[in-house]
Amino acid sequence: MSFTKTDLIGLKDLSKEEILFILETAEKFKEINQRDVKKVPTLKGKTIVNLFFEPSTRTRTSFEIAGKRLSADTINFSSSSSSTTKGETLIDTVRNIESMNADIFVVRHAFSGSVKFIAENTKANVVNAGDGTNEHPTQALLDLLTIKEHKKTFEGLNVAIIGDIEHSRVARSNLWGMPKLGITVRLFGPKTMLTEHFNEFNCKVCSSIEEAVDDVDVIMMLRIQRERQSNLLLPSLREYSKFFGLNKILLSLAKKDAIIMHPGPINRGVELPSILADSKQSVILDQVENGVAVRMAVLYLLSLNKKGE
Amino acid sequence: MSFTKTDLIGLKDLSKEEILFILETAEKFKEINQRDVKKVPTLKGKTIVNLFFEPSTRTRTSFEIAGKRLSADTINFSSSSSSTTKGETLIDTVRNIESMNADIFVVRHAFSGSVKFIAENTKANVVNAGDGTNEHPTQALLDLLTIKEHKKTFEGLNVAIIGDIEHSRVARSNLWGMPKLGITVRLFGPKTMLTEHFNEFNCKVCSSIEEAVDDVDVIMMLRIQRERQSNLLLPSLREYSKFFGLNKILLSLAKKDAIIMHPGPINRGVELPSILADSKQSVILDQVENGVAVRMAVLYLLSLNKKGE
Amino acid sequence: MSFTKTDLIGLKDLSKEEILFILETAEKFKEINQRDVKKVPTLKGKTIVNLFFEPSTRTRTSFEIAGKRLSADTINFSSSSSSTTKGETLIDTVRNIESMNADIFVVRHAFSGSVKFIAENTKANVVNAGDGTNEHPTQALLDLLTIKEHKKTFEGLNVAIIGDIEHSRVARSNLWGMPKLGITVRLFGPKTMLTEHFNEFNCKVCSSIEEAVDDVDVIMMLRIQRERQSNLLLPSLREYSKFFGLNKILLSLAKKDAIIMHPGPINRGVELPSILADSKQSVILDQVENGVAVRMAVLYLLSLNKKGE
Repeated sequence: MSFTKTDLIGLKDLSKEEILFILETAEKFKEINQRDVKKVPTLKGKTIVNLFFEPSTRTRTSFEIAGKRLSADTINFSSSSSSTTKGETLIDTVRNIESMNADIFVVRHAFSGSVKFIAENTKANVVNAGDGTNEHPTQALLDLLTIKEHKKTFEGLNVAIIGDIEHSRVARSNLWGMPKLGITVRLFGPKTMLTEHFNEFNCKVCSSIEEAVDDVDVIMMLRIQRERQSNLLLPSLREYSKFFGLNKILLSLAKKDAIIMHPGPINRGVELPSILADSKQSVILDQVENGVAVRMAVLYLLSLNKKGE
Repeated sequence: MSFTKTDLIGLKDLSKEEILFILETAEKFKEINQRDVKKVPTLKGKTIVNLFFEPSTRTRTSFEIAGKRLSADTINFSSSSSSTTKGETLIDTVRNIESMNADIFVVRHAFSGSVKFIAENTKANVVNAGDGTNEHPTQALLDLLTIKEHKKTFEGLNVAIIGDIEHSRVARSNLWGMPKLGITVRLFGPKTMLTEHFNEFNCKVCSSIEEAVDDVDVIMMLRIQRERQSNLLLPSLREYSKFFGLNKILLSLAKKDAIIMHPGPINRGVELPSILADSKQSVILDQVENGVAVRMAVLYLLSLNKKGE
Repeated sequence: MSFTKTDLIGLKDLSKEEILFILETAEKFKEINQRDVKKVPTLKGKTIVNLFFEPSTRTRTSFEIAGKRLSADTINFSSSSSSTTKGETLIDTVRNIESMNADIFVVRHAFSGSVKFIAENTKANVVNAGDGTNEHPTQALLDLLTIKEHKKTFEGLNVAIIGDIEHSRVARSNLWGMPKLGITVRLFGPKTMLTEHFNEFNCKVCSSIEEAVDDVDVIMMLRIQRERQSNLLLPSLREYSKFFGLNKILLSLAKKDAIIMHPGPINRGVELPSILADSKQSVILDQVENGVAVRMAVLYLLSLNKKGE
């Protein structure tokens, strides 16, 4: 197949074939990441700008490593000291950097929809590195690559996503992507973190954590992000751990070879105990490794398609 | 001609021939910036250090991209966490980085004259990226390159520079450079932002904005930089826009093919309305693009000349 | 000889032969640093991550330049905006970056012992760039390289280390390393900055500054680091300068060809006056230059040795 997208805004916009093609491309780049010399000249002479309007060391580092391993020039542009704080509009900032002949923007922004808005207003290729509570597509793609490695197939799998669904762009990207691949998604979390509007997704909202993990292939625990929460009716960390955290008994309800995922950073003892985070069933660090490969694949594939051509 | 300068401190120090030679060199680099592979090995193995004692994401990014496209190793050294805050003298900081065998320093500093002082005390080539209210030579050079592209010649042109002349190193660099090329400069701005000492420059201080823009070839609107102003007798933004901003009626007084420039970031609706900022006469994004080319030219030309040789 | 260490935590762990071998390797890299094209392809395709949990522009810059001159991809990861502030454990942060197939970590951390702990928990090679008041091995190695250049031999030399010994990881690294090479170390400083536990080192604690500098080959003045001091019984800067600073009369007590060292940044007029800092006997900037060469040597030598092989 040929990949013709010029931007990656979300898994909402990708077909099953496009998702599978990105994953196959990522598998080839993963092999390069495991070599002694982890570098290919693929994007030499291209300029990738990490436009982070919201701080994120981890995702920014993963994209920066991906860009450098493709031999691109990577530039970090963070908003804290940038012109947007001087009253410049978002699009003016973007068009300015674009005018420096930037090829690809990797954008993180606190507002849902802002990355799509940027993509519509620039000639550069745009990758969404997280926009508000909307999507974080490369995270969902690395989740899928990790599942593929461990389960070989997607069709018929059951995945439980547990925790703060409401504030999670990772959850939303997976909710768009997984059903396209034949995965059944079950959701569970505190009521304040999982409101009724999730009924519109192709998923099953469970009424107990036991129901969510019963006989599943994959358990994805989400991070508690207190910084995103404005609701006062929140469980304490201890309550959260007791009622919404994973433990050995719950895990025993899942398939024997179920894998445990987490987008990181983990709150050990809250979302899951160390004995599970560090167990053989945990694939959390595989997710991180696959992140670089998936981002190399996305940067490479988008760079093939120029806008307006 | 041969370019023999070892530092670029300001357009005050450049001859007409030197300015034109930098612009011609920049035109060649601009062609590289528009290629698919935007990179030449010119400065491979050279170390360029961006020494920013005052924050500036935009100019720093332009220089960083310029250095990387020349294949230099570029290092960002910002003062916020640096040793100057630990009581080290400016020259000790500079000599320390110089001792790491740095080849070129790109320096921004809040004090006028500081970059010249640094240049006199280091063996590395020095580029002024803005010193206080003194000069910002690469900005004036990119302005000139943009004018050259649109007007073909400099001789006999009339340029109106409007706004906060007092605090503008961009204005001062252009005031030094433009008359050398045969350009007549007219100034207009609030009285608190345009004091009498500008009479010493080869320019015309106008008494109305209409007089400033009348039949001009270029209108350069300066940014209102409230952070630089200590004077309380300032117009409000609304007053500023009304009395010192550009509008369609004023523009109609200029030559039909007059171009509109702005060093950015724009305060839309203050210095000029969006309808003019985004019009065909606006060359603001050309200025940004030319900035990378001009900086590549300056870095390249200075690197040819070692001090004490 | 063959260098088999996989991490550089401190000079405590290095044999005399290993120290000498690193210095010889650094001498070769110093020659590269003085070339017109300062770059070798040695670590092309390797990923070096500067993991700075404590700010340090100068040491980070030296390591970044070293990595880039070896053609490695260098990534700066500072903790201020990182996940450790989001409740992630230190080892989880390290294992995450390791999972991105990082090859070498350069780590600075405020807690003594933390870098060793990291090295024990990662497959990547680890270089200690300063851990609390414990060690700063590349600084001691650059000190030794500078001494070697000026004194040709180590055996029989007398070195006076003067100042805030208590809070100095530089002093401790030299206290571990110098005696292994046959150097006699003398210590002197304010009582609050030189407590009795230094008697356990192979060194001489002097009771006067005159005793410390008498007939020595090397005088190493340490930086006053007020930010590390919690003791209220401190001398003022003026008292410090008078009782613990170097001056011409004291210098005349040392060997005629004695060299003056300082790890930087200097407090001019406190630890030593400008007339000595800028004298021919001062080798302070040689130290800085040698820092890049030593770090290139360490990064190169460690990269040859993979853990678990």
